[in-house]
Amino acid sequence: MEDDKHHADYTTFSASQSREEVLQTVIDSYEALTTGQDNWVCNLANASSLLWHAYHSLNVNVNWAGFYLTDKSVLDKQELILGPFQGKVACQQILFGRGVCGSAASEKVTQLVHDVNKHPNHIACDGETKSEIVVPILDESNNTVGVIDIDCLDYEGFSEVDQKYLEELAKLIIKTCKF
Amino acid sequence: MEDDKHHADYTTFSASQSREEVLQTVIDSYEALTTGQDNWVCNLANASSLLWHAYHSLNVNVNWAGFYLTDKSVLDKQELILGPFQGKVACQQILFGRGVCGSAASEKVTQLVHDVNKHPNHIACDGETKSEIVVPILDESNNTVGVIDIDCLDYEGFSEVDQKYLEELAKLIIKTCKF
Repeated sequence: MEDDKHHADYTTFSASQSREEVLQTVIDSYEALTTGQDNWVCNLANASSLLWHAYHSLNVNVNWAGFYLTDKSVLDKQELILGPFQGKVACQQILFGRGVCGSAASEKVTQLVHDVNKHPNHIACDGETKSEIVVPILDESNNTVGVIDIDCLDYEGFSEVDQKYLEELAKLIIKTCKF
Repeated sequence: MEDDKHHADYTTFSASQSREEVLQTVIDSYEALTTGQDNWVCNLANASSLLWHAYHSLNVNVNWAGFYLTDKSVLDKQELILGPFQGKVACQQILFGRGVCGSAASEKVTQLVHDVNKHPNHIACDGETKSEIVVPILDESNNTVGVIDIDCLDYEGFSEVDQKYLEELAKLIIKTCKF
């Protein structure tokens, strides 16, 4: 980082950038911020901020951007627990297989949901959410460490473009964080 | 929680509430959300969201609300590491004694800073921050577990009223979280 750059400046995105360029900037900034830093809470807290501000710079009505992690303290079932995020207060626990986040966690496949009301068994942390993308974070042994979850107030908020960059971010998270 | 209440509704504050009432609601909501839940990441992520939305409901120009935690993995020095927050990307590490957060951590006393430019050794994560309140989170043995940090874009953003409620929140965090 240049000497005169504040950390907050990482969340300033150029208004003229395309969606691809903004999401690539998120990845580049995440990489720069995590150099020499493997604390997952710290890294995912800043990642949530990058994602939130990136989508808002693109005028995408994201109302939640953050993470759920596999809860290692729970032994009798597979459960996600709330991690760092930006947005309104969220559900603390989600069972694997339940809702969009739980489906991504158990199926280990990105869930691109254009209309949450059409998703079987959707869990509404926020009744105003209309669409959602959830990307599993899978370790080297293909175990689910957690998920990236981004919600939007509009239908069809996300596409395969978002999926591509968020899946790349998920891989980078595994490389940079000690869980 | 009532059956028809979404988690996101915890961040809806009445526009007619006084500062005292809004901050008391933060404490009450934090207590409700942490019933049966002692995961500190989960609890402080939701606490950041409560604080952010509470101050915005009061039209206080808060640009950062969140937590730094004492980094137990660092043995040769006392250092804070970034925890859950809402706002722009932030500094990852702060040495005890450095800046407003580091002073609160080492002195174990709330730092109520009306003008950050007048604070000796202020660390600017965001050049736009004008005032700040940092409350130490102290465990039963009076060790610093972390700090609550809230920044404002205006001078004199916080007063003894905020200090009172945030110090109460800090005590509640110790009661409800396993660190």
